[in-house]
Amino acid sequence: MRVAVVGAGALGLYYGALLQKSGVETHFLMRRDYDAVVSRGLQIYSINGDFHLPKINAWRTPEEMGKADLVIVAIKTFANDCYQELITPLLTSHTMIQTLQNGLGNEEALAELFGGERIIGGVAFLCSNRGEPGVVHHLGAGRIVLGEFVERDGQRLERLAEMFRGAGVDCRTTADLKRARWEKLVWNIPFNGLSALLRQSVDRLLAVPVTRTLVREIMLEVIRAGNAQGLHSDIPEKFAESMMEFTDNMGVYKPSMQIDREEGRELEIGAILRTPLRFGAEKGIGMPRTEMLATLLEQAQSGLQTGQYCR
Amino acid sequence: MRVAVVGAGALGLYYGALLQKSGVETHFLMRRDYDAVVSRGLQIYSINGDFHLPKINAWRTPEEMGKADLVIVAIKTFANDCYQELITPLLTSHTMIQTLQNGLGNEEALAELFGGERIIGGVAFLCSNRGEPGVVHHLGAGRIVLGEFVERDGQRLERLAEMFRGAGVDCRTTADLKRARWEKLVWNIPFNGLSALLRQSVDRLLAVPVTRTLVREIMLEVIRAGNAQGLHSDIPEKFAESMMEFTDNMGVYKPSMQIDREEGRELEIGAILRTPLRFGAEKGIGMPRTEMLATLLEQAQSGLQTGQYCR
Repeated sequence: MRVAVVGAGALGLYYGALLQKSGVETHFLMRRDYDAVVSRGLQIYSINGDFHLPKINAWRTPEEMGKADLVIVAIKTFANDCYQELITPLLTSHTMIQTLQNGLGNEEALAELFGGERIIGGVAFLCSNRGEPGVVHHLGAGRIVLGEFVERDGQRLERLAEMFRGAGVDCRTTADLKRARWEKLVWNIPFNGLSALLRQSVDRLLAVPVTRTLVREIMLEVIRAGNAQGLHSDIPEKFAESMMEFTDNMGVYKPSMQIDREEGRELEIGAILRTPLRFGAEKGIGMPRTEMLATLLEQAQSGLQTGQYCR
Repeated sequence: MRVAVVGAGALGLYYGALLQKSGVETHFLMRRDYDAVVSRGLQIYSINGDFHLPKINAWRTPEEMGKADLVIVAIKTFANDCYQELITPLLTSHTMIQTLQNGLGNEEALAELFGGERIIGGVAFLCSNRGEPGVVHHLGAGRIVLGEFVERDGQRLERLAEMFRGAGVDCRTTADLKRARWEKLVWNIPFNGLSALLRQSVDRLLAVPVTRTLVREIMLEVIRAGNAQGLHSDIPEKFAESMMEFTDNMGVYKPSMQIDREEGRELEIGAILRTPLRFGAEKGIGMPRTEMLATLLEQAQSGLQTGQYCR
């Protein structure tokens, strides 16, 4: 299996490094970290054990990478306009495309361009961030839930899951990708959104009763919108409470969107908030707090220079 | 008429200076500006014409000020716990107390302490801020709407209004103080709240369509809550649109709460947001966006050291 990782942020580098370490032929499309990785290799500092990969198949363009059996998509969602340019050169007729991106709408956009049959969704629960070029910090979790975008027998999915498990990743499969995506949004929307807006880690949000209530209310909006999408089974309302308790145990954790904001980067407001809002509105579900949060985040970002992401 | 101005911020100094200039015996309770005013007098830079008062009756304690016929209350609402200490020494049996403070609940709190008969509410529409000690900038507007807290004939109110008009203030009276307060909240809640939260002047909020929509939705929540309070006549929904257009003409204006936040001061979240929310909830009016805004502002303030305000 020849794997191409497109998007060498913390997530792409982390999972790609684990795959390479387990013997899978892995190639990385890189920009920022290219020079560092070519000269010093890739260093992973992980709660599961640090490791160093002295030699990485790093490439600056998808044309140089060549064809792949599996493309792992790990770019930020606001760069999804680059799908065509970054992925097309990697494809054969049988190449699978697995997105590990945040939020909603990524599988749909990939299917539109490349056909739904080859698309696999992956929902990643990973706490990680980048250090200096060539360094990734893995702070917690790491589970991946994989699901087919178009229903089919589970063989292909199970093979992929086996590959990740062989690399040490807690990888599960689901027949209900949509539910897995919405479950992650139940956490992502309030915590990424509020932490980014207020520049406060999750523990500070949870320490104040009225803010805790706001987090819960946003979660319930997301659960209601998700359950209107025709999931195989409903997400129960008590899922909100269990996500709050799960987060109570995370301590001083900064969600990725907060880090992005603090570092002056663009935020994934589209995939994490606006697309779920649109899916909710299409089913007649009002989400006033989520809507307000999206608006406030966009307004907080207004004036930010957004750039060219593809190359 | 011997007037005592309690709270020498921009608003108290501005109206007090106009009264003194027109010949009314005016006394000011001061902290920050005391030394400057005693040595250099009070300087007003106003769109209606600059002026300087070389000598001010400035006092450091209410005991030194002595009794007054009219107490004008102009302290920040988060210091309302100081009413008793600051106002009691100024009172005779006939002293009137006129609050020009922001938000809701001030007349009620004053009535609780000093009896409702002497309380007069004043809703001020003033764009002003303080410069260096002893300097006030008057940037726009200045109208005051006066109303009795307890219904009675209009004679006393008219006399007060005449005094302000004689000082050059556009002063009107209303038989429906509650409506005047809620009308001001229709502007204050979205613009003070959002500008303080995002640290953006009103023109930036109004320039973005989704944020403009959010402002309008918050205004409609406030109008609905106000109309549930038993006003003499309802505030029409179209009042929201006229407030938006009014604000379009204000240009790059920073509401007082934004300035307070930028300067690290405590925000008037109680009087401007929490008390209106409580009044709305008592009448069964849901205000999810206003509630979320109050929560976000409190959360943004969490960790701010709040101090002793009375002396």
